[in-house]
Amino acid sequence: MKRFMDLADFTRDEVLGLLELAHRLEAHPEPRALLGKILGLVFFNPSLRTLASFQAAMARLGGSSFVISPGQGTWQLETRTGVVMDGAAAEHVREGIPVLASYCDALGIRAFAEGKELASDLAEIAFNGMAQLIDKPLINLESAVNHPCQALADWKTMDELKVPRAGRFVLSWAYHPRALPLAVPAAALHMAAMRGMEVIVLRPEGFALPGPIMQRARDAAACSGGSVSETTDRDTALRGAHVLYVKEWGATGSYGDAGEDARLRGALTNWCVRNDWFAASPDCHVMHCLPVRRNTAIADEVLDSARSVVRREAYNRLPAQMAVLHKLLSS
Amino acid sequence: MKRFMDLADFTRDEVLGLLELAHRLEAHPEPRALLGKILGLVFFNPSLRTLASFQAAMARLGGSSFVISPGQGTWQLETRTGVVMDGAAAEHVREGIPVLASYCDALGIRAFAEGKELASDLAEIAFNGMAQLIDKPLINLESAVNHPCQALADWKTMDELKVPRAGRFVLSWAYHPRALPLAVPAAALHMAAMRGMEVIVLRPEGFALPGPIMQRARDAAACSGGSVSETTDRDTALRGAHVLYVKEWGATGSYGDAGEDARLRGALTNWCVRNDWFAASPDCHVMHCLPVRRNTAIADEVLDSARSVVRREAYNRLPAQMAVLHKLLSS
Amino acid sequence: MKRFMDLADFTRDEVLGLLELAHRLEAHPEPRALLGKILGLVFFNPSLRTLASFQAAMARLGGSSFVISPGQGTWQLETRTGVVMDGAAAEHVREGIPVLASYCDALGIRAFAEGKELASDLAEIAFNGMAQLIDKPLINLESAVNHPCQALADWKTMDELKVPRAGRFVLSWAYHPRALPLAVPAAALHMAAMRGMEVIVLRPEGFALPGPIMQRARDAAACSGGSVSETTDRDTALRGAHVLYVKEWGATGSYGDAGEDARLRGALTNWCVRNDWFAASPDCHVMHCLPVRRNTAIADEVLDSARSVVRREAYNRLPAQMAVLHKLLSS
Repeated sequence: MKRFMDLADFTRDEVLGLLELAHRLEAHPEPRALLGKILGLVFFNPSLRTLASFQAAMARLGGSSFVISPGQGTWQLETRTGVVMDGAAAEHVREGIPVLASYCDALGIRAFAEGKELASDLAEIAFNGMAQLIDKPLINLESAVNHPCQALADWKTMDELKVPRAGRFVLSWAYHPRALPLAVPAAALHMAAMRGMEVIVLRPEGFALPGPIMQRARDAAACSGGSVSETTDRDTALRGAHVLYVKEWGATGSYGDAGEDARLRGALTNWCVRNDWFAASPDCHVMHCLPVRRNTAIADEVLDSARSVVRREAYNRLPAQMAVLHKLLSS
Repeated sequence: MKRFMDLADFTRDEVLGLLELAHRLEAHPEPRALLGKILGLVFFNPSLRTLASFQAAMARLGGSSFVISPGQGTWQLETRTGVVMDGAAAEHVREGIPVLASYCDALGIRAFAEGKELASDLAEIAFNGMAQLIDKPLINLESAVNHPCQALADWKTMDELKVPRAGRFVLSWAYHPRALPLAVPAAALHMAAMRGMEVIVLRPEGFALPGPIMQRARDAAACSGGSVSETTDRDTALRGAHVLYVKEWGATGSYGDAGEDARLRGALTNWCVRNDWFAASPDCHVMHCLPVRRNTAIADEVLDSARSVVRREAYNRLPAQMAVLHKLLSS
Repeated sequence: MKRFMDLADFTRDEVLGLLELAHRLEAHPEPRALLGKILGLVFFNPSLRTLASFQAAMARLGGSSFVISPGQGTWQLETRTGVVMDGAAAEHVREGIPVLASYCDALGIRAFAEGKELASDLAEIAFNGMAQLIDKPLINLESAVNHPCQALADWKTMDELKVPRAGRFVLSWAYHPRALPLAVPAAALHMAAMRGMEVIVLRPEGFALPGPIMQRARDAAACSGGSVSETTDRDTALRGAHVLYVKEWGATGSYGDAGEDARLRGALTNWCVRNDWFAASPDCHVMHCLPVRRNTAIADEVLDSARSVVRREAYNRLPAQMAVLHKLLSS
């Protein structure tokens, strides 16, 4: 394994192998597996779990890490090609990224969607542009439309909860004061489909996931024996659900149009998950990648109940990423 | 030992045991004592000594650490309960803190006083609210009205200087351009009382330490054979003093009222410690937790003289915290 | 070796010894050489390479490090002596720097030129003021007019490229939207002279390097058998050059005068290095310390060509600094 950029780069069996390794490393720690190895972490955007859990994962395996946050103690980095750099950015990723890669054994990069042009974000222009500059092991810490580390941790969480392989997985849109990227919904949708689940995307009008994202998930479902559908009807979606995976994202019909997005979401504040959502799915688990705004996307009564497994998902970032690092770096 | 939140949670003998351990670790380093252990450090407020010395302490014992500063490369964290989170904070401590704790073996948290309501700060609402969310070993890196790591380092410093157990310890208010929290004066006062000293709080009118803080110190003095009194008269206070512990803090009679605080302190710029303060206590040591504003709280002539032991106090944060970490984490 | 502050503090043979050690550590890693050692890194200014490569260098040698950036999560530090500290800075370097040094085995400090008074920057008032506060091993991470770590990495890079000892080294000014410090041009000039090269400084009128900087280089050349000259004529300078070392810096004739500097450089945007600069030096390597603004200081066509060795220079920071750390800290 040379890169961990997208769960879709791996077969279902390879993913199951990573999950098995994650469990093994929890049961039988290997505190010397990555002795002397260095992970470089580049964050173009804020982070809590990824920032802490990758440093902890390297330390648990005997390695170390350094963190670079362009624009915070470090030069702003230009990502566009061919520009005359007379603005705020003092350095180009064409220098910065290979240089950082040369100091470490593996590099992780977080680069959120620009949120202006859907086609450009779907094509992962910025992330792939950086990825092609280096040939060191590379980890996607969340790109425009992907978050494979979160997806792997979520899969592990559902296995631990004994959610049936063919269980009903509802990915629901939730309210947020402004548009958020598609990375997590896209990754969660694809992961659940790849796991073999009955996946239903529940979202209001104007927030349908883009065609290519839906198609990727349908392709994964076709291989795994799962299914993918979508609806605006909450009652239908949630009936008998094993998992409600909650996520906020921007209006896709008017991608990059902040005004239209605000107008649409302004009428949707009732998409805050409450206990009464689960009348027809009493044992349904609630998942969310975090951070989550309490009483905006999910109510206190849900987050503080036994059905919420959000902290477990977050914890699972650690063993899942330890498995990824072990595969990439142990000799 | 499961938590290090307050020196008052320990008996005098337990504190002496920690100090003995600190000395032992200086004389006989244990570079493998915490091999593989991880300390998470969460700073809601700025830090220099705590930030550097805790990372160094873990490294000296063979462990490692990660740092999270909410709002700086990481989401702002909401601490209030029950709020609708539609403002600047993207995540609640109810998720953030347990998640970070799940990545490490011990967590340290710094959360200064809000400085609005005295009762709420005295009750350590914010810090205790976070503390009850986790059951991992926890270290108070400075809360609203406590700073036990500083207190432990200060106690060690006085032992090294052979300040008598029953010596005269003057905690003096000093000028600062604006109100600072009560954490260090409260911790130093209690520590000196617990050590068994003759403690005198010297402060201008309007800056008396709150009743519950004075009472805690009196209780400690009652156990240790020390005493606690207060005065506005500098000459009386300093006569024969072994230690002058200098600290800036806000007007307590008008807590949270910035205007009244500014008016009061505006007339007190002469509370800047100078050589002539020591006419009747020629061998008096000057202590301060740092950071200190030169020629505002303490004059150059004092800080650059042999009577200043501020750097030694700061250095002692390292061995004192190594002892705390060793107690919390070594098996 | 107790300090690494300036290449001029060492004999040519001592520098060759460091370079040999750097090569040896690349060929024969010593992952336990600095076990338990701690490096403190203080950055008063932004950094990418220095920040990442020093952390990586310590990790490669088995040690660890912590990073302090005054003003970012840490108090602003005052550097002036004798001032009444009633402004933004909460702490003075007279406390802060010795305290940080007491937590580690070696300290690195970055403090750029103030850029106001040439004499003060040439005298390294700020950096030397901090250096004299501590007696721990100290590393210059870039001061007002020096950058010895960069110089050592550049020397190593030229050795690897088999640039002749007496080869022609052209240090050329390049355009940048605003004035940058003299640290890198001064260090590169002195390094090439010390290496024994035929050094030519190519710069527009108004941008001549200050007399003391030129003199230092001439002194080094006198010892090594090299030479130092300067010109405004690009064709003459570049004829037969082995290396073009590109760097942006401020107008020295009007040092600290931003208006005059802007007026002068406004007419010099054609000092952007392009392929046609190399008509009479086809095998000339292009060096730059990075960060570099593409199509402002150096064109894409040059940076993306085989003649650019900027990434190699940046990589060489790692082994060069490993040698420095090894010399300072291994027992």
